[in-house]
Amino acid sequence: MSLYNQRGVSAQKEDVHFAIQNLNPGLYKRAFCRIYPDFLVGSSDFVNLMHADGAGTKSILAYLYWKETGDVSVWRGIAQDAIVMNLDDLLCTGVYDQILYSSTIDRNKNLIPAEVLKEIIDGSKEFFDLMGACGIQINYLGGETADVGDTVRTITVNGTMTARWPKNKIVTNENIHQGDVIVGLASYGKAIYESEQNSGIGSNGLTSARHDLLESSYAKNFPETFDPSLDPRVVYTGKYKIADIKEILSPTRTYAPLMKQVLMKYFDQIHGIIHCSGGGQTKCLKYIPELTRVVKDNLFPIPPVFQKIKETSKVSDYEMYQVFNMGCRMEIYTSESTAKDIIDLADNFGIEARIIGKVEISEDKELIIEGNNEILYYQ
Amino acid sequence: MSLYNQRGVSAQKEDVHFAIQNLNPGLYKRAFCRIYPDFLVGSSDFVNLMHADGAGTKSILAYLYWKETGDVSVWRGIAQDAIVMNLDDLLCTGVYDQILYSSTIDRNKNLIPAEVLKEIIDGSKEFFDLMGACGIQINYLGGETADVGDTVRTITVNGTMTARWPKNKIVTNENIHQGDVIVGLASYGKAIYESEQNSGIGSNGLTSARHDLLESSYAKNFPETFDPSLDPRVVYTGKYKIADIKEILSPTRTYAPLMKQVLMKYFDQIHGIIHCSGGGQTKCLKYIPELTRVVKDNLFPIPPVFQKIKETSKVSDYEMYQVFNMGCRMEIYTSESTAKDIIDLADNFGIEARIIGKVEISEDKELIIEGNNEILYYQ
Repeated sequence: MSLYNQRGVSAQKEDVHFAIQNLNPGLYKRAFCRIYPDFLVGSSDFVNLMHADGAGTKSILAYLYWKETGDVSVWRGIAQDAIVMNLDDLLCTGVYDQILYSSTIDRNKNLIPAEVLKEIIDGSKEFFDLMGACGIQINYLGGETADVGDTVRTITVNGTMTARWPKNKIVTNENIHQGDVIVGLASYGKAIYESEQNSGIGSNGLTSARHDLLESSYAKNFPETFDPSLDPRVVYTGKYKIADIKEILSPTRTYAPLMKQVLMKYFDQIHGIIHCSGGGQTKCLKYIPELTRVVKDNLFPIPPVFQKIKETSKVSDYEMYQVFNMGCRMEIYTSESTAKDIIDLADNFGIEARIIGKVEISEDKELIIEGNNEILYYQ
Repeated sequence: MSLYNQRGVSAQKEDVHFAIQNLNPGLYKRAFCRIYPDFLVGSSDFVNLMHADGAGTKSILAYLYWKETGDVSVWRGIAQDAIVMNLDDLLCTGVYDQILYSSTIDRNKNLIPAEVLKEIIDGSKEFFDLMGACGIQINYLGGETADVGDTVRTITVNGTMTARWPKNKIVTNENIHQGDVIVGLASYGKAIYESEQNSGIGSNGLTSARHDLLESSYAKNFPETFDPSLDPRVVYTGKYKIADIKEILSPTRTYAPLMKQVLMKYFDQIHGIIHCSGGGQTKCLKYIPELTRVVKDNLFPIPPVFQKIKETSKVSDYEMYQVFNMGCRMEIYTSESTAKDIIDLADNFGIEARIIGKVEISEDKELIIEGNNEILYYQ
């Protein structure tokens, strides 16, 4: 059993696929989010989406950082994480505006005081204000905060988005085909709408990485931050203090301001969009058509945060690419000529972009990642 | 400090009110849910709502029942709880149709297998099918299921609803005034669209009640079902086995099929609607105007499930009415003549209804509940 499994997470979510088999899959099989008819209004020219996601166990890293430093503002990043894990998924369907947001926060009242809730809620509002200034209208319609210490050890921060969007402006990934190139958008650096350097980390893969990175004193001092039924040999096995790895708390970057421009200018040339969240660089395998191969032979240099996770975790590159974005969190499938324009546009936003790979014809659906010194093969 | 507080819950949610003070309060101060302009479409004739809520710690009762009996179907009731805590809140604003739903389920994968997730998701679908047959269209648009055993001890089941509704058909509670009578809808019994007797319990107040009712063996055998930092003297202090109190697992009744008829037929005579969830019978104090008094002098007989909680908890009637619905989970503020029609309509649905009280003029905002042998006073 992999360390990942021993720590109670599954990258591939087989259980979830079993559980949701009877759910209405929506109108488009390959779309990144489920897309439904316009139930809200009843127009055949529009579609509806609801999307739910959250900051996951990144909230535990914030908790430890806050407990050690007293810096409550770290929770604003968690607010952004919960939002961006929704927003950037929606971007993959072409949606970038007139969005509704509601948050769901469950806390252990004995450990999480009101000031933490306030940072999360005010941080959400601040992030929406920033997006508004970038032309992305997200309306914060409230939410629920529940005191449930008997089910939640510390805190969970989740959110849900709703959108209604013109049917002729949605991206369904149906048009991905051989000959497409893939424009990758860097997950690290500092976009013009960001106030700090971003390490490139997202909000996934952090359960296992957290245990790999942090030193064993955290198990003793903060037993509320892990499942006590875990084998002690997989709990906080690393060498770092939380302050040494603050880059792992970088709030997940949103690509929304850039993607709005991309979608407005080049919609007809966009064949597919994939957010490399859970599943990392292998996420595309869920969305590309049969009989195609994706070759990623020009990914960005791996950012230090992932190097650090890899060194400490002692996992292979093969596994790292299955879990983390490795420096590239958004993929746009398009033609070569449009790719150049998108890369220029990204440059205007201070976001590194490049053609990271291409789509080829193949006997089986597959993915090839050409890493530093090896060729990795996924199916 | 009250037992309720010692167990990490607060009936009045002061912390939450502090945390959300900067949030947009919506268009109507007294509305039961926050109501916003029609951001989705931009029509001045419509409003938008998003609402989030969940089954709370009732999921722990389901967990214990499932562990002891092996009956996985108990999780379908939890699905209904999470939905109805949203749906019946929305009913209070006049919304009863064309609703979108998304679920957010966080689980500890080591304790909650796929079959439990499947019951919750299939149970949600089954409930929506039943509502559809009753003329209440709720569209299940998916959701998120996350493996987060380091933040969640067992499972949390939450949901979010979105609605767009005609502005001239919303209930804002602004019209509650002296002279109104209050029609109460019983929380117990068996409505024509229900397949089993309902005990009347909802999905609130169950953290403290659970500890009061269940015997101490649960602390030893199921340490995953409570916060280990609680004072052991407040953990599972009761005398019951979970099988002895199965009525506490009755899924929260929805009033939607009845309320649709009420709202369609008598909208202009409805002055306010209040869902007696968290806050129990005192919830109305948040919504009635200044300088009015609510007198509840004709509540339903207290159902056995609440008698059992009261006897075991040894809390006063005063506190019981502050936490539980005590047999009446929905209040309609209307004129006396309309009250009669609503009561007849409820009778058609097999739901007991009666005039439970009235609104009077007063020097201070207050609530008087005339209980069995005493008069209770709240402000």
